[in-house]
Amino acid sequence: MDIAQVDTPALLLDLDMVERNLDAMAAQFDGGRVKLRPHAKTHKTATLARMQLDRGAVGICCAKLGEAEALADGGITGVLVTTEIVGEEKLRRLVALVPRAQPVIVLDDEQAARHISAAVAAAGIQIDVLIDIDVGQHRTGTAPGEPAVALGKAVAALPGLRLRGLQGYEGHVQHITGTDERRAATAAAMSLLCATADAFSVAGLATDIVTTGGTGSAVFAAGFDAITDVQPGSYVVMDSQYRDVQGVHFENALTVLATVLSVRDTWAVVDAGRKSLSNDGGPLCAIGVDADFRLAGDEHGKLLFAGTPAIALGATVQFVPSHCDTTINLYDEYVVHRNGTVVDRWPIVGRGRTR
Amino acid sequence: MDIAQVDTPALLLDLDMVERNLDAMAAQFDGGRVKLRPHAKTHKTATLARMQLDRGAVGICCAKLGEAEALADGGITGVLVTTEIVGEEKLRRLVALVPRAQPVIVLDDEQAARHISAAVAAAGIQIDVLIDIDVGQHRTGTAPGEPAVALGKAVAALPGLRLRGLQGYEGHVQHITGTDERRAATAAAMSLLCATADAFSVAGLATDIVTTGGTGSAVFAAGFDAITDVQPGSYVVMDSQYRDVQGVHFENALTVLATVLSVRDTWAVVDAGRKSLSNDGGPLCAIGVDADFRLAGDEHGKLLFAGTPAIALGATVQFVPSHCDTTINLYDEYVVHRNGTVVDRWPIVGRGRTR
Repeated sequence: MDIAQVDTPALLLDLDMVERNLDAMAAQFDGGRVKLRPHAKTHKTATLARMQLDRGAVGICCAKLGEAEALADGGITGVLVTTEIVGEEKLRRLVALVPRAQPVIVLDDEQAARHISAAVAAAGIQIDVLIDIDVGQHRTGTAPGEPAVALGKAVAALPGLRLRGLQGYEGHVQHITGTDERRAATAAAMSLLCATADAFSVAGLATDIVTTGGTGSAVFAAGFDAITDVQPGSYVVMDSQYRDVQGVHFENALTVLATVLSVRDTWAVVDAGRKSLSNDGGPLCAIGVDADFRLAGDEHGKLLFAGTPAIALGATVQFVPSHCDTTINLYDEYVVHRNGTVVDRWPIVGRGRTR
Repeated sequence: MDIAQVDTPALLLDLDMVERNLDAMAAQFDGGRVKLRPHAKTHKTATLARMQLDRGAVGICCAKLGEAEALADGGITGVLVTTEIVGEEKLRRLVALVPRAQPVIVLDDEQAARHISAAVAAAGIQIDVLIDIDVGQHRTGTAPGEPAVALGKAVAALPGLRLRGLQGYEGHVQHITGTDERRAATAAAMSLLCATADAFSVAGLATDIVTTGGTGSAVFAAGFDAITDVQPGSYVVMDSQYRDVQGVHFENALTVLATVLSVRDTWAVVDAGRKSLSNDGGPLCAIGVDADFRLAGDEHGKLLFAGTPAIALGATVQFVPSHCDTTINLYDEYVVHRNGTVVDRWPIVGRGRTR
C-alpha cells in the first residue's frame, strides 16, 4: 500500500530515515567510554527500544512507571524511569514490576526514599536508585553538591535501595539554537553534575551511573569525565523544533498524514487539528504545499493560499510535527513506511501511559 | 475510595455537577420547538450520550466517523457526523456503519457527494445528508445562499443520498466574552443560515433538520425560526475557557488530579505536563493552591510559590482544564466521583478516534 491510500489522520514513520538516525547517533558513541541510554518517552515503543539496544545502547530510559510497564511487556527490561515515583498505588505497581523488569528509579527526597525503601524491603526485593540532581532546569532534583551527598548517604543506608549513582537532566539547554551557546550552557550544567559526582566519590557513594543529556546536548555532555551515559530521545524521529537547533543533524522521519476535506476560494481544510497535531513546539507547515498553515480547531487544520488553492479535494498532505513527543502521544500506532510504501504498523504501547 | 487515593494523573468527573449541567441545559429546551443534539466530540462516551438522550435530546453529534463507530458500539445510533467524510477507506467504513447505526453526514462539495452516492448506492443502502454551510467561521462548508441551494439540488438528485436539511456551525462566536457581542455575532451567522434554509424551502429542498450552535451560542441560535436543533458539547463538563464567557453558567465538573512529586525552596512539581493537561484554551491554575502554575515539559507541571511551598510531597492537586475536548482526548478513562468518593470508571471510547 502507498501512504497516499492510508486512512487519515495517520502518524507516518519513515523507517529508512529512522535507521539512519539510529545509526548516526550510535556511531557518535561507538567504542567510546560514554554510552547511549536513549529515552523511550519520545517513541513509546518496545520495537524502537530494541533497535537502540541492538546498536549498542547500554539501556533505555522512560519518563513514567506506566511506560516502563509497557516496555517490560515488550521484553525491554532494566529501564531507567527518569521521573520521581510518588504515591501508594505507584509503589504497589513498582514492587510488582521489580522482579520481572528490574527498573532503575530516581529520587530527590529522603522522605520519598523511606517510603520506597519500606515498600521494596517489605517485599524482600532490592531496587537500583539514582539521586536526581537539579543541574539548572529547576524542575525536579535535589540541589547539587552537599544536599545531594547528604541524600545519597541517607539512601545508601536504607534497606532495599541500591544506590548506583546520579542523574542530572539539562532540559533547559536542549533547544538553544546556537551551537556555541548550547555547548556553554551544557558545560555549566555538567560542572554541577560532575562536581556532585566527585563529591559522591569522596564520600564513598556509588557513581557507576552518571546519566544526563538529550538530543541537543548529548555530544557535549559526553565530553565530561564523570558522565557514563546520555539520554537522547527525539533524535530517532526528530521534529521541526529540533530541526532549527544548529548542529543537530538528524532526519525528520515522523510526519502526520492528513486529507483535504474541503476546498474554498483561498483556503483548503484538512482533517488534522489539535487532536492530531500538537503545536507546542512551534508553528506547523505542510510539506511541499505553498500555503500558510494553522490549526483550526480540534479536528481541522487550514491551509491558507495566496490565491486559488493549488490542491484538490481528497489529496493527502504531510506535516512535520513541531514537537514529536506530544504528537506521538495522540496516536495508537505508527504507519511504518519505506520510501512511501507501507511496510508495517507498530502499536505505540506507551501512548497515554502517563501514570 | 476517596479521589485523593486515585493513581495520577487522572481525569476526574464530578457526576453531581454533570447531572446538574445536563439538567440545566435540558431545562432550557424542554417543551420548546428547538431540540438539543449535543456534541459527543467533547465527552467521547456512550454513557454521557445516553444521559443526554434520556433528557430529551433529539440525537447526538460527533466530529469523526471513528467516534460514530465507537458510539454505535455503545448503542448510540442516528449520530450526526459534523465533519465532511472524504477518502476511499472512510467510504468503506461509512458503508459498513450505515446498516447498523444510520449515521447522518454533512457535505459541502458535489464531487465528494458523487463519491459517497456511488459507494452507498452500490451497497444498496441510503444515507441521510445535510448540506454544510459556512456561516462565517470560514472553515468547512459551502458558501450560503445560491451555492448551497445548487449543491442541495445536486445532492437531492443523487442516488443513495437522502437530503434532510442544513448544518451551519458558528464556531467563531463561541468564546466571545460579552453576552451582547456574542448574541449579535450569533445573529449574524443565523441570518446566513436561515436565509439559506428559506432558499431551500423555496427550491423545494428538505429542511427537516437545520442544526447549529455550541455551548456559547445555543440559546441565542434557538431564537431563530428556521433552526430545528442545537449542538452544544462543552456544557456537560465545562472548562476554564468557557467559564470566562459571560452568561454560560455551567459547573466545572471536569478536573485533572495530579500528585506533588518534588518540593524545593519556592516551587513544587506535579506529575501532570503536556501529556496530561492541554493548555490551548488558556492558562491553568491549581484549585485552592495559592501559587502560579505552568506546564514544565511533557510530564511535569510547576507550582510557583511566593515563598516556601505550602504543599507537601505526595499531596494531590486538582486542575480545571482550559479546554475540555483536548484534555479528555489524552485519557483512556474518567474516574467518576460524587463529592470526592469514586463511584465508577467510564472508558473514553472516542479517545483518539480522529479518523
